[in-house]
Amino acid sequence: MEEKKVWLFKEGNAKMRKELGGKGANLAEMTNIGLPVPPGLTITTSTCMEYIDNGNKMPLGLMDEVKNALRNVEEQSNKKFGDKNNPLLLSVRSGAQISMPGMMETILNLGLNDETLLGLINLTKNERFAYDSYRRFLTMFGSVVLEIDRQKFEDALTKVKEEENVCLDSEVSAEGLKKLIPIYKDLIKNETGLEFPQDPYKQLEMAIEAVFKSWNIPRAIAYRTHYHIDHRLGTGVNVQTMVFGNMGDDSATGVSFTRNPSNGENEFYGEYLTNAQGEDVVAGIRTPKPISELKNEMPKIYEQYVEIAKKLESYYKDVQDMEFTIEKGKLYILQTRNGKRTAKAAVKIACDMVKEGLINKEKAITLVDANQLYQLLLPAFDEKAKKEAKIIAKGLAASPGAATGKIVFDTEEAAKRGENGEKVILVRVETCPDDIHGMICSQGVLTLRGGMTSHAAVVAKGMGKPCVAGCEDLCIDLKNETLTTKDGKIYKKNDIISMDGSTGEIMEGDVKMVEPKMDDDFNTFFSWVDEIREMEVRANADTPKDVENALKYGAKGVGLCRTEHMFMDPNRLPWVQKMIIAKNKEEREEALNHLLPMQQDDFYNMFKALGEYPMTIRLLDPPLHEFLPSKDELIEKVATKKAKNEDYKEDEKMLNLVENLSESNPMMGLRGCRLGLLYPEINEMQVKAIIQAAIDAKKDGVNVKPEIMVPLVGTVNELKEARKIIEQTANNVMEKNGVQIEYKIGTMIEIPRAALTANEIAQEAQFFSFGTNDLTQMTYGFSRDDAEGKFMSAYLSKGILLNNPFERLDQLGVGCLMEIALDKALKVRPDLKRGICGEHGGDPSSVKFCYKLGLNYVSCSPFRLPQARLAAAQAVIEAKKDPL
Amino acid sequence: MEEKKVWLFKEGNAKMRKELGGKGANLAEMTNIGLPVPPGLTITTSTCMEYIDNGNKMPLGLMDEVKNALRNVEEQSNKKFGDKNNPLLLSVRSGAQISMPGMMETILNLGLNDETLLGLINLTKNERFAYDSYRRFLTMFGSVVLEIDRQKFEDALTKVKEEENVCLDSEVSAEGLKKLIPIYKDLIKNETGLEFPQDPYKQLEMAIEAVFKSWNIPRAIAYRTHYHIDHRLGTGVNVQTMVFGNMGDDSATGVSFTRNPSNGENEFYGEYLTNAQGEDVVAGIRTPKPISELKNEMPKIYEQYVEIAKKLESYYKDVQDMEFTIEKGKLYILQTRNGKRTAKAAVKIACDMVKEGLINKEKAITLVDANQLYQLLLPAFDEKAKKEAKIIAKGLAASPGAATGKIVFDTEEAAKRGENGEKVILVRVETCPDDIHGMICSQGVLTLRGGMTSHAAVVAKGMGKPCVAGCEDLCIDLKNETLTTKDGKIYKKNDIISMDGSTGEIMEGDVKMVEPKMDDDFNTFFSWVDEIREMEVRANADTPKDVENALKYGAKGVGLCRTEHMFMDPNRLPWVQKMIIAKNKEEREEALNHLLPMQQDDFYNMFKALGEYPMTIRLLDPPLHEFLPSKDELIEKVATKKAKNEDYKEDEKMLNLVENLSESNPMMGLRGCRLGLLYPEINEMQVKAIIQAAIDAKKDGVNVKPEIMVPLVGTVNELKEARKIIEQTANNVMEKNGVQIEYKIGTMIEIPRAALTANEIAQEAQFFSFGTNDLTQMTYGFSRDDAEGKFMSAYLSKGILLNNPFERLDQLGVGCLMEIALDKALKVRPDLKRGICGEHGGDPSSVKFCYKLGLNYVSCSPFRLPQARLAAAQAVIEAKKDPL
Repeated sequence: MEEKKVWLFKEGNAKMRKELGGKGANLAEMTNIGLPVPPGLTITTSTCMEYIDNGNKMPLGLMDEVKNALRNVEEQSNKKFGDKNNPLLLSVRSGAQISMPGMMETILNLGLNDETLLGLINLTKNERFAYDSYRRFLTMFGSVVLEIDRQKFEDALTKVKEEENVCLDSEVSAEGLKKLIPIYKDLIKNETGLEFPQDPYKQLEMAIEAVFKSWNIPRAIAYRTHYHIDHRLGTGVNVQTMVFGNMGDDSATGVSFTRNPSNGENEFYGEYLTNAQGEDVVAGIRTPKPISELKNEMPKIYEQYVEIAKKLESYYKDVQDMEFTIEKGKLYILQTRNGKRTAKAAVKIACDMVKEGLINKEKAITLVDANQLYQLLLPAFDEKAKKEAKIIAKGLAASPGAATGKIVFDTEEAAKRGENGEKVILVRVETCPDDIHGMICSQGVLTLRGGMTSHAAVVAKGMGKPCVAGCEDLCIDLKNETLTTKDGKIYKKNDIISMDGSTGEIMEGDVKMVEPKMDDDFNTFFSWVDEIREMEVRANADTPKDVENALKYGAKGVGLCRTEHMFMDPNRLPWVQKMIIAKNKEEREEALNHLLPMQQDDFYNMFKALGEYPMTIRLLDPPLHEFLPSKDELIEKVATKKAKNEDYKEDEKMLNLVENLSESNPMMGLRGCRLGLLYPEINEMQVKAIIQAAIDAKKDGVNVKPEIMVPLVGTVNELKEARKIIEQTANNVMEKNGVQIEYKIGTMIEIPRAALTANEIAQEAQFFSFGTNDLTQMTYGFSRDDAEGKFMSAYLSKGILLNNPFERLDQLGVGCLMEIALDKALKVRPDLKRGICGEHGGDPSSVKFCYKLGLNYVSCSPFRLPQARLAAAQAVIEAKKDPL
Repeated sequence: MEEKKVWLFKEGNAKMRKELGGKGANLAEMTNIGLPVPPGLTITTSTCMEYIDNGNKMPLGLMDEVKNALRNVEEQSNKKFGDKNNPLLLSVRSGAQISMPGMMETILNLGLNDETLLGLINLTKNERFAYDSYRRFLTMFGSVVLEIDRQKFEDALTKVKEEENVCLDSEVSAEGLKKLIPIYKDLIKNETGLEFPQDPYKQLEMAIEAVFKSWNIPRAIAYRTHYHIDHRLGTGVNVQTMVFGNMGDDSATGVSFTRNPSNGENEFYGEYLTNAQGEDVVAGIRTPKPISELKNEMPKIYEQYVEIAKKLESYYKDVQDMEFTIEKGKLYILQTRNGKRTAKAAVKIACDMVKEGLINKEKAITLVDANQLYQLLLPAFDEKAKKEAKIIAKGLAASPGAATGKIVFDTEEAAKRGENGEKVILVRVETCPDDIHGMICSQGVLTLRGGMTSHAAVVAKGMGKPCVAGCEDLCIDLKNETLTTKDGKIYKKNDIISMDGSTGEIMEGDVKMVEPKMDDDFNTFFSWVDEIREMEVRANADTPKDVENALKYGAKGVGLCRTEHMFMDPNRLPWVQKMIIAKNKEEREEALNHLLPMQQDDFYNMFKALGEYPMTIRLLDPPLHEFLPSKDELIEKVATKKAKNEDYKEDEKMLNLVENLSESNPMMGLRGCRLGLLYPEINEMQVKAIIQAAIDAKKDGVNVKPEIMVPLVGTVNELKEARKIIEQTANNVMEKNGVQIEYKIGTMIEIPRAALTANEIAQEAQFFSFGTNDLTQMTYGFSRDDAEGKFMSAYLSKGILLNNPFERLDQLGVGCLMEIALDKALKVRPDLKRGICGEHGGDPSSVKFCYKLGLNYVSCSPFRLPQARLAAAQAVIEAKKDPL
């Protein structure tokens, strides 16, 4: 017997996702639990594949089966397809097993032709509505099914609008719309050589074919490839009765949420319009009424709707975002889907639903979007206040959070005034280590140059301080201490501005803020999260203050302590510079001897703060010239002094030093472990500081767990050599103190070659920490700063990249290297400890990938810890459902 | 029965390499073909592994077996081990199956002690010789066996030399050497706590153990790991009778070659000294006599020696480099090995030996070292003249070859005078595109800054022009047009210097040169090479002139035409700059329209020159700021003009443009296909030029085969997008001309991600060309310029890297990515054409690796073609012998 190709909604159910697609299965389910869904039918996904395998030919008998099912739909809806008095109109849309944007759009009002149009006019007594429906149908059919450039339809409409001297589509008169019908028909004839098909069945057949074909359009293929979705699944086709909310005062249309999506309160929430179509609600021509008014206006229907909403929420175990239409006093549910909500609402709803017994903890954990969670932890603008604020410029959203304060251009001044409790925003062309103190004392940092990994961005992110970087919309005049916008408006020192580090927006004046707080719901929710989570979550932290924050947000250790950040303190920088420009080992050691007690003190305080949790300390990593003055500025200085016959010898000396250290591609130059191998005394000093601090902390009763991490290893010999220095130094310090410290030596995996030769490297490393920032740079051949400055946005908008790989881990390429590394490494060292400390360690989708890879921990900025913890817990739940 | 652990030389043979090691097997073979080899014994390689597996304990019964064999050696040599009147002295050395530098050095004179010393004095009547032998033995035994720092022995010797006021070891008196003996014994006692063992058997046992242990010292393990040599092979131990050439006038010692290693003539070649030891020949205290004199001095022995030499040559089928000693009128062969020779000699010898019927063509091909071959193609200095020349400075050997000419600092002047036939050497701080014309017209290029990939280096290498780059020994004074050396010596404009681009040396005056030529032997030899070779060999060529060279040296196509080199012509650069600084698409297209006919013309001439061979053309690759003036210079200019109150507006405008384009890591910035995706009009212009040129050449009867290559692809979408532009443009041009051209579209694989996702990329590419320069950079995270400028030499000298991965392909890391790429790509496109166009395409060991990987072709600079062809042929022969 032939397999059944066409299912009436009432024949299917939610379990038939595979056969009917997600949309079809849900429509069936809603129909079967008795909800008023406009009747319809679904063509199975396997029929789509049959069509494609046939060389794009309609399977024999399909249209007969559709016609038979349509008879049943006509009976249910009391209308007749193609009937000139009481025409049944249809919507046709695709729906695959896995929700898949990019395929065919919906076609509405199918079944309209010159005859049924008259029927529609007669039924609705609304000529304008009928012509509008017809011209919309012609547009959709022409562009989607017949593949005519949609712009051509728009152009014709624009012309009519010009003639009628109106702006909005909705202002066009019935007469105007009527005029469009023959124009559109001609357009179709001219473009395709064929008449617009008046036969509704022909229309339907062509629309079904178009859905089938849309399975294999390039963007759909690309989407499936990217998300590893099987190309053989096929799409279902849903053919559904149209209903209209604009058939009079007994008709209405609206949208509503089962709970308040803004604050999570358990209250019915939404709006509607009587005698209107869905798009009118959205378009904002008429002001919609709150859903509560429906209670007065149509009490019975309201009651019915509330009942349905509750049913759906408890059925789908999630807040529902529903669309409904009331046609001549009869309620129809057109769509229901899980409702979007704020992070605050999500946590409250999840907790409430558990309390109500509606869901269990696991389900609750899946109800909160980890990507949103950071909202809870940041000072934020009051939404209403921000909407009203005047945006004066936009830069890169370098470090999230909101800030308001007086413009200050001078670092010293910002530091001093900030310390005295004044709210200031530090505005610089770019920042350098000298600016740290000023940054600490400011509410936020605004720079005119530099990308997402510029000094300002990285340091501010580490501090959890809002930062907008590379704001090229603004011009700075340091002499007069003013800031000029693109529009020429000038802001002076002490003028108040507000900045949103999450969006990159700079606003005029003092925009009202709301303070974040971790309430009871938050704490309850995260107790469940930590219960289910398997991966450890650590923080990237460089100071005792960072450690405090990290522990507050749930870190169970430090996964990355960047020792260079300790170098950037203005009290230390002179010694760091002396170390760099040392002419010989002795001079270098002298400078290092000055730095040693400072680093040791930092480590000691971090060990104390961390207690029994482990701390991974990375040895010095960045190119040395990062600690020196800017080459460009020195060139300028020397040239100026020369031209003015002033003494320039000292500056020229420094310029020569800087030039000697400068590199054409510093990212791939003398940095990371290469530094410590060329100048072992740097590593020696750092290891001395770590081990002595650990010993001192241990004497104070702290169960210290230092993990020393060698950065930028590409070949096992580098690690071997570095390890020798570390072990020798550590042994010396331990012997001298007569105290043993258990410590680990490991490496970052951030160079492709390290991943490819991980079997060798694992022999020398007790742990791997994937440095996915650099690994992404090398794997793509992208310098992050340059990529984001020059071509990332073009790549994203052209669809060459689907995500910014610096934000979301590229599983296909970078992930492949991680898999190779782990495969090779675990063969030689099955107990290798393995984690990630790149920025991806805080990105939910990347955290989930790390769980699949079998990492032991992820490490991220303190403020991203909650989202990392949540994603780690969600990964466990998802893995149970969907074993990989 | 126990396995035999000890073999007398006369018991073994050449086939026992595995059991006896290479050296042992050869000594046995020589013994058995009747050559006068000092008798000895070999301990098997498996005994070594037994020792190691025993936890470094001597296998039971081993020393008994050794002693038994030694009885036989004593009989053969008529001396007795440990005898105070006629002592047998021994040499002990390691020897594994595969020649493996890094293991234990030789110990000579073993068996000497306070008693046998007297016997030696008695026998030789040469007290100095005897004490010298003893102190040498103590040094070797102390350092090699007892692991005492060798420097300590040297220090004591130095002290004696100071006391005697002499410089050379050989000048120390017998008395002085005698004094060292107790000092050395004390040294041994103090360092190890043990007396120096007087018992010769104890000495022997300890030396044997030291050889066994040396199998597992770190540098030996590292060597094996690197070359994938089995760690379980073990080493043999060779114990051989010492003979002495310094026992009177009937004794002698010397070295000789069976053919002239300098020019390949079939003549006996070498030198010797009577009454001397081997080291005296090397030390140059007495002037050695040519081997022909031996004919007069000891005619019978000479005759015997010549006979042996011929026998060995025909036995080993290669030129032999032999060491011999005549002890009291008796000839001993101490060593024979394949002789090193110049490339010229190697080719002649290989051809001669085939003519003589001694070897076949395949063997002949293995007799020439591909790495040496470039010597043949370069103008070179006369060896004698160079030895006498005064070296005034040394820089980077950036592009090989010799040149002599007058110093000229100004590019224009160099160009003009060079064109007029004067020999000039262009000396610049660094070069830029403006200097091209001057470079073309000079004999060689000398720069004071820049690395191996600086503009000067790359362009000179492409031209086959000698270049010494980054010569920081020299200071330039452009105002006075002088060059100052480190020693303060000043060279003026028009002074003549000579430069060796193969060594980086700069010499004073006109050093005599010899012209290279490809003689009959060369042509014969390469006809055999091409017969056996399977991989195609192509050239990297950017101009019609390059193509001519390429064809001359045997290229069968162009594997890489770098279109940007066409942009650097000084006539074109202004238009290139206009293209770059264009404010909009229109301005950019206007500039491109000017460049189009120029590029088209180049392509046309290249197609014509190439004939039916394919040409791979890479679309524009480098970052755009490479075509603009230097940022540093502009900053200086603007600052100077500002300070002097001069008009700087124009310079500042250019500075702003350059700053906008400047990147922090241009290697990983806006370059490669990223350029063409952001500015499709650049690709369009280039494709137009290629296809129109191909059509024009086709009309002239050339069977053109263009292959358009997209650089720096990291994700398949980049290639898809680029391909769309290429295909559209090509179709337009072909339609307009009414001519079809068969062309291919492919990509470089030079980004790790491209290799990792090769299955996707291969769907869009008809060919892959591995760009191993960039691939090495990204895989290691090394910027070549920065690495070679800052840390490569330290890495090589510390043994962190065994080779510079930019010169020799890193098989473990980069090679692994290539394998992954091919595995994945061939699964989706089995007929994918695959080649390499990085500099490794000309490196013999890398070429062999490419053959193993299954590449279809390699492509390299024209002057490296012969070595690439040879290596490709050798790869075929090696693969037959040693199937992988």
